[in-house]
Formats: sequence, C-alpha cells, structure tokens
Amino acid sequence: MNLKSMEKSNQFVQQNRERFLEELFELLRIPSISAQSDHRPDMVRTAEWLRESLLKAGADRAEVMPTAGNPVVYAEKIIDPAKPTVVVYGHYDVMPEDPKDEWRTNPFEPVIKDGRIWCRGADDDKGQLFMHAKAFEAMVATGELPCNVKFMLEGEEEIGSPSLYAWCEENKELVKGDVILISDTSMISMDTPSITCGLRGLCYMQVEVTGPDHDLHSGLYGGAVANPANVLANLITKLVDENGRVTIPGFYDDVRILTEEERTNFNKAPYDKEEYMKGVGVEELAGEEGYTTIERTGVRPSLDVNGIWGGYTLEGTKTIIPSKAYAKISMRLVPDQNWEKIAQLFEDYFRAIAPKCVKVDVKSLHGGQPYVSPTDLKAYKAAEAAIVDTFGKRPLPFYSGGSIPIVSGFERILGMKSILIGFGLGKDAIHSPNESYGLDQFYKGIDTIIRFYKHFAE
Amino acid sequence: MNLKSMEKSNQFVQQNRERFLEELFELLRIPSISAQSDHRPDMVRTAEWLRESLLKAGADRAEVMPTAGNPVVYAEKIIDPAKPTVVVYGHYDVMPEDPKDEWRTNPFEPVIKDGRIWCRGADDDKGQLFMHAKAFEAMVATGELPCNVKFMLEGEEEIGSPSLYAWCEENKELVKGDVILISDTSMISMDTPSITCGLRGLCYMQVEVTGPDHDLHSGLYGGAVANPANVLANLITKLVDENGRVTIPGFYDDVRILTEEERTNFNKAPYDKEEYMKGVGVEELAGEEGYTTIERTGVRPSLDVNGIWGGYTLEGTKTIIPSKAYAKISMRLVPDQNWEKIAQLFEDYFRAIAPKCVKVDVKSLHGGQPYVSPTDLKAYKAAEAAIVDTFGKRPLPFYSGGSIPIVSGFERILGMKSILIGFGLGKDAIHSPNESYGLDQFYKGIDTIIRFYKHFAE
Repeated sequence: MNLKSMEKSNQFVQQNRERFLEELFELLRIPSISAQSDHRPDMVRTAEWLRESLLKAGADRAEVMPTAGNPVVYAEKIIDPAKPTVVVYGHYDVMPEDPKDEWRTNPFEPVIKDGRIWCRGADDDKGQLFMHAKAFEAMVATGELPCNVKFMLEGEEEIGSPSLYAWCEENKELVKGDVILISDTSMISMDTPSITCGLRGLCYMQVEVTGPDHDLHSGLYGGAVANPANVLANLITKLVDENGRVTIPGFYDDVRILTEEERTNFNKAPYDKEEYMKGVGVEELAGEEGYTTIERTGVRPSLDVNGIWGGYTLEGTKTIIPSKAYAKISMRLVPDQNWEKIAQLFEDYFRAIAPKCVKVDVKSLHGGQPYVSPTDLKAYKAAEAAIVDTFGKRPLPFYSGGSIPIVSGFERILGMKSILIGFGLGKDAIHSPNESYGLDQFYKGIDTIIRFYKHFAE
Repeated sequence: MNLKSMEKSNQFVQQNRERFLEELFELLRIPSISAQSDHRPDMVRTAEWLRESLLKAGADRAEVMPTAGNPVVYAEKIIDPAKPTVVVYGHYDVMPEDPKDEWRTNPFEPVIKDGRIWCRGADDDKGQLFMHAKAFEAMVATGELPCNVKFMLEGEEEIGSPSLYAWCEENKELVKGDVILISDTSMISMDTPSITCGLRGLCYMQVEVTGPDHDLHSGLYGGAVANPANVLANLITKLVDENGRVTIPGFYDDVRILTEEERTNFNKAPYDKEEYMKGVGVEELAGEEGYTTIERTGVRPSLDVNGIWGGYTLEGTKTIIPSKAYAKISMRLVPDQNWEKIAQLFEDYFRAIAPKCVKVDVKSLHGGQPYVSPTDLKAYKAAEAAIVDTFGKRPLPFYSGGSIPIVSGFERILGMKSILIGFGLGKDAIHSPNESYGLDQFYKGIDTIIRFYKHFAE
C-alpha cells in the first residue's frame, strides 16, 4: 500500500474519532422521518445542521435549498476548476421507527454497544453520508484534498426522492461534475468487500378495497355481503402464482434475460444458504422457481405486501365486516423494466380482477428505475483501489436487490454515472427495528473515501 | 286491545319519558368496552350504576356479583313465589368505538337527532336492557307487576360471555325462573315486527403468520424470503372457495339441511334486494351459491375476516417485508354445528395449508353455539300478543344471522328457554360507527315489555 501522499488525512481521522462520533450522534438524534408529515420541522432542522457541519468541515459555500418537499443541502469546495469534481450524494431522511415496541433502545437516541452504533439512521443513510463529510474535513484540514467536491444531500430518498428530480433539472450547472459518489448500500461482508453495480427499480402502490359503505355486524350480514378484507386477500393471492411468478400481464416483458455465462458469473458471489436463513430467521426460503437466491434478489423482479390493514385490529374481538381494507404493495424491478409502465400494468390488472361486489382504488405512491453501473469507469477503478488499500482485498462487483431510484435519474438528468461504495452490512437491519452500524464500518469507510479521492485524482 | 289492567304502567311511561332518557344517557356515557382491558374500571362503574338504578326502580335486592371477568348485576323482586318468574337477561358491555374518525358525534356522548339517540350502546345493548328496567319500574310504581322478576345483566357479551357460564353454574337456584326474556336483537322493520327464533353460533379465531424474525428490507430480500402478509392473503383465500363455500374439511358435516318446504316458508320473510343493497351501500351481493340472502344469513354458516394487519400501515411508504401478519377470522354457525369442533377443524386446516417458509399460530378467542327457540312456548305466545297490542300486527318468527352465544348456554345450564323480543332495526348500525336507536323503538319497546308481563301472567 502506498498511502504516503494522503497519510495525514487518515491520521487526522484517528485523532478525531471521538469528536466525529459525538457529531454523528447529534445528527442521529433528529427524527427526520420523511414519510410522516408531522416530522417536517425535523427535516428542516436536519438540513440546517448539515449545512453548518459542512461549512465547519471546510466548504466554501453551503446552502439549504428549498424544494417542493424537504430541502436539499448543497455545499462545495472548488480547489481548481481544472481538477476533477466529485459530487457526493446522500440522504438525511430516515425510515419510520415503527414497530416501536420491537426496539431494544430508543430509536432516536444513539447507543454504543458491542462495537456498534444502535439508532435509526445509524447506517441508512446518516451514518454513511456523514463519513463523506468527515473524510472531506480531514482532507481539507490537512491540505490533502486533491479534487473539487460538491455535496448534494436530500431529505426524501425513503419516499422516492419526489423533489430531487426537479432540483437536478434546475441545478444542472451547479452540480456539474465527473462522477457521483454514494454510500447508501452494503458490502457482502467485511471479509468480502464489494461495490454495488446494479440496483433494482421500485414501483410502490397502495390499494383500497371498499365493500359496504360502513362496517357491518358480521352476524347479521355475514355470508350475504362481500367482505373487503377477504376480497383483498383474494386479489393479493392473484398477483403472484404458485411458482413465485408475478401474474400481472406484461410484467416480465422488459426483463433483461441473462445469458448462461452471465448467470454462472453472477452466482459466483459468496452465498451460504444456512447462514442466509439464520440471518433472517426462517427455516425455508421461497421465491421464483428456477432461480437462485442471488438471482432472485439481484436480477429478477419481485412483489411484496409492505403493509396490510382493515377492520378491527386491537385487543380482543369485534364481529364486523369492515367497510374497507388496504394494502401497500411494492415491486422491485430490474433492467429494462420501467416503473411507470409497471404501475399502469398493476393498476389495470388489479381493477380487472376485482369482483363487482367491491369497489377498488389503486394509486402509485412512488417509483424509480433500475440502474446498472459499468465496471470499466475510472471512478470504479479508483473505488476498487481504495477498497484494496483499506480492506486488503479486491472488491467484487455486486448487484443489490435494493433501490435508490434517483440514481437512474442522475444519469438521465445530469449525465453522470454513480459509484456506489457503501459500507453497510446485512446485519445493520436498515428499515427495521434496532438498526445499527459498526464503528469499524464507519471508520474504515472514512479511510476508504479519503483513498478514493487520491486514486481518482491520480 | 284490552289493556285496562295495565294501563297505569303505560301511562307512567308516558309521564316519565324525559327522565327515562336522561337516565339512559348517564348509562350510555360510561365507555364500557369489554374487549379492551383498560376499560375494566368502566365495567365496574357501569355495574354499580345499574345496581343503583334497579334498586330505585323497585328491586327488593340488587347486587354487583364478582366473576373472573366483569361483574354480573343481579336484582330481583319476588311478589309471590307461586306466580311465574321472568328472568331478564341483558348486557351492559359495548363494542369498541373503533374506527373513531368515522363517527359524526362523540361515540360516548349521546345526542338526539332525527328522533334517534346516537351513541355507542344506544341499541346494543344498553338501550335495550334499559327498556326492561323502566318497564319494571313502571309496573312496580303503579302496583301492576304481575310476575316475579329477576335481572341478570352481564358485562362480557361482546367478548363471548366467558364468565357467565360459570356464574350460571354457581347460581342455578338464584336465577331459577320460567323463561329468560332478552332484548338484544332486531325486528325486520317497524311495520313488520318479528321475534327472533334462531341465532347463529360463533367461532372467533386469531391467526398469526411469522416469516423472517425481524422486518426485512424489501429490496435486499424481496423475492427470496416468503412475505408473511402475502402468505396470510393466500391462506385466507384458501378458506372460502369461488362459490362462497367454506373449504375447511368437515365444516358442513353438522349443518342441518332444511326441507324444501322449510326453505319456502323461510323465504317468505319480506326482503327487497334493492333496499338491502342500498342499506349497506353495495352494488352487488355475494355469498354461497344456491342460497338466497335470507338463507345465507339465517340458516347457512359464513366466514369473515373481521380484522387484518401487518407491516407498515401509516402514511407514506416503507419498503419492508414484515416479520408478522395477523388476522381475526370468525365463522357464524348454524344448528347443529358445534363451535369447539369447528375451532379445532379451522386450526387443523390452517396449520395444514401453511407453507413451511412461515410459522403459524392459531388461537380461538371465543365462541358460542347456535340456538333455536320453538314458537309454541307460552312465553312466545305472550310476546306475540304483546307485539300485536303495541304494533297492531302479528310478528313473524325470524332467524337472525347474529349470535348471542350465552343463549344456548342458558338452555344447557339453567334448563330455560329464551324469548328474544328485540326492538333493534338494521339501520341502528350496531357494532359500527354512528350506532343509533330510535326514540319510538325505545318507548314502544317499554310498552311491549309491560304487555308481555300481562299476557305471560294471564
């Protein structure tokens, strides 16, 4: 490893470990849940906090820029217009903490235990975006920053980045750069580092099934009036067949089919079925017939009920035919599926299969296109080299089942590719109760980011 | 009509209309929701209130008698051991008010509008049981009480009367009488009065489906791990076939099949399909093929999801595979189905059809046997005559789709038949938001009850 030219930055990180953590804790304590409108003031507070933090870290300019939704934090340091420019993207919004009673600690009060930070957003994405702010600070403080840097931090990623598309359109010149650098993904493991080259797209729907116009007594009417909760169950059942294939007509039309060679390579990623099942706590896996687990989450689309509700759901019993039943249903998409087309296919099909004894309402809540990043980019090579420096191993290219819808938007609107060097791990339990982020992930992440700049500027 | 011998009681009701209503409002204001344990103090408060009320009305003795659950209010007035004894049964507990935001008024603050009392419990069963207390008061006050009267008022009917069975076993002698008189049912309409001769039984189950042991990110795992909400939907779908028949093996084994003649008679009850659909707000009915609406709710069993929940159900989106999904599922039973047997058949079937990729838990929340009352009883004839006196029409015998599980328990434990003279109407929306009870139903009910005593003592 030849790190001489950047060694002061990495030393700076070593010397400021505690302070970095204290600052991160301040950030984590703000409950910036984008899905819930009563947290709107928290979103603004988080954006202001990040602006201050980036100014202190050495930005020449830092602004909280309003959008139709939550603000975008923009900051930059231009050391020399002739040098390459890295645009850092991250998001300061987090998932709701629900179900609250499954958290072992307060979801918005970070706690360190077993070498990990336990808090909503510890990984996704406050912990990960903050590594970039601190790497930047270290390079500025030691005079080692080798590139221009621009930060573009949004507060709506978890709800599909509805405002960032327009913001990018309006600020094309402002955020112009050579590559977008993102830490919002995971590695296979600390022993098997990886760079995410593919992301699934997302199409998130909500359906409402209405039976009678008010809750009915299930004794007086049971057997004679269609129950919307039973009907909703039937409709959901009709969305996926017994072989795990989505039944919506046209759903697979645009799915890119891998060659046998591609499939073979794809399945070389390390995978231990027993370990995988233990990690999620199940005794048998399920999914589309004819595909491996890695394929099912990497290159095949899926359909999941994310939430379902209707009728009496509290303690004890209530004998009713509910008036309404609801479900949130989302589909993960793969190249070359288009989420807007899939949303339409879903809606058409759902309406077509609904019986006349109920009314259905279908709406699209958000979506994003799938994304693939080539591995022959200069930025990919720099990320690869930086990971080799820090982890001592060459990272594998990896196809994540997750989605960062805006990434394909960046390519379309800004004409820039994104490099996804995330330091998350499966056990971080992002989106779940008891989210956590390892201190080693955090500090190794900062070190790796500093090294990325060095290699990218070479 | 020859009412001379009782006319003073009916006049007393006329003279005390306002006060009766004020007293009922006090009773309605106590939120005695038996399904929710935090209302336990309200149950005791309601029982105490009723004890006081019955003492003031003229009972010789009135007690709040503890049980393993909510107390039973027992009161009596024995005018002459040689005279017939009427045992009045009613329940002071009510259904939860959920969904709260669909109420147009406060669910526990009675309001009079359009000649009706709007409040949870206005009909079921506080309004109806209070008619008996006031009929009793009127007869005592005017010296016209012709029978002995015993009151047995429980606070757990809406949760299946779990404690009343044991209470009856322990108090067989205390509540000994000639007939049990109950107002906890409906009439066909004010123009078509009816007496309920049949009640469906009830078997109320709760199921829990567990997939992964924590909520998973639906992108990272979607397509590879079974989603318990999708699986629950599939399982519910498998409970009822496309022809509306319950698919649980053995479910119909004990269902009594009506003869063609019985079916013809049964279908003579007035029924207007358009009116019925308008009343519940649907454009098409559904149910078991080959049966009429009256049969579907009167003499055929049914299966309904009363509540379903799992995953993210709040505003916006959350991309998870939930760890768990739940449903409350109840079945209405007809003679000679046995609810305990059906609960076992349900559990066996549900466990058998669950795939190995999930764990399921099934529990029985409560149940009750179906009930049939013969129309040749002296008490039935007295009820018929009383209704003719008040409504000017001979009431039709009617088979209700609802359940009062304890009624078959009374027959088994106490050896007494029950007469169900209820004054509810379909539009009362019992168990639903905006429950109401007409002032005409309330006062005509009191008048009819007074006349029942007269005819029964004859």
